[in-house]
Amino acid sequence: MGERDEVLFANERFYRAFADADIREMNAVWADDRDDVSVVHPGAPAVAGRAGVLETWQAIFEGEQQVDIAFSDAVAYFHDDVAIVLCTETVMQHNLTATNIFCRTPHGWRMIHHHAGPCNVARRNRGQSRPVLH
Amino acid sequence: MGERDEVLFANERFYRAFADADIREMNAVWADDRDDVSVVHPGAPAVAGRAGVLETWQAIFEGEQQVDIAFSDAVAYFHDDVAIVLCTETVMQHNLTATNIFCRTPHGWRMIHHHAGPCNVARRNRGQSRPVLH
Repeated sequence: MGERDEVLFANERFYRAFADADIREMNAVWADDRDDVSVVHPGAPAVAGRAGVLETWQAIFEGEQQVDIAFSDAVAYFHDDVAIVLCTETVMQHNLTATNIFCRTPHGWRMIHHHAGPCNVARRNRGQSRPVLH
Repeated sequence: MGERDEVLFANERFYRAFADADIREMNAVWADDRDDVSVVHPGAPAVAGRAGVLETWQAIFEGEQQVDIAFSDAVAYFHDDVAIVLCTETVMQHNLTATNIFCRTPHGWRMIHHHAGPCNVARRNRGQSRPVLH
């Protein structure tokens, strides 16, 4: 499996853990060889530090209803041992734009940052504006 | 100047170019040794590729009114030659959370990704939830 497939697989694993509300899997998705990980949930300020990041997921998973989340249009850009994955999230028919950052660790590609925010723009110019896979 | 100061200076330069609507400076802020740069403006889908990214800034700068933007609480996390800067943006008394990613290039630290989204949460738990500078 090439590194692009590995990173896109890690991204898919992240969304599977999210959709399944599986904190054990979510824990495994995030890098455990550093504490400098961070998350920006929609509408929220940044949370940094591994324990704090995992607490946000625990709180989401313990929420009143499971989040029905899907993703599409994932593309990965590589910068040394860091990969930036951009994709569209769909939650209850609302679109969000996500930046997911992964780092190569001794245990493979692991998430070091997630930022998702609302996407309100009709994607009429989709062919032009969506990230193009090189 | 240490690398943390260098990256925070690059972040400051980005916001100065933004506030000044200075497309020449904005061009200089972004990495020019690769095309894999991308941007997610508030409420928008991702735009990738250097030309496309710069076009979004040009469109913003040509907008009806100058964007009165300020930033605060910037912290930088390093992962090899990539730095993730998290900060709060303030535009017309509204807060946004920003993820700014810089890469070490032959010409210094340059931006490779910017993602900003609305921050609606009252920062009552500011001491707890803001990224902590290590």
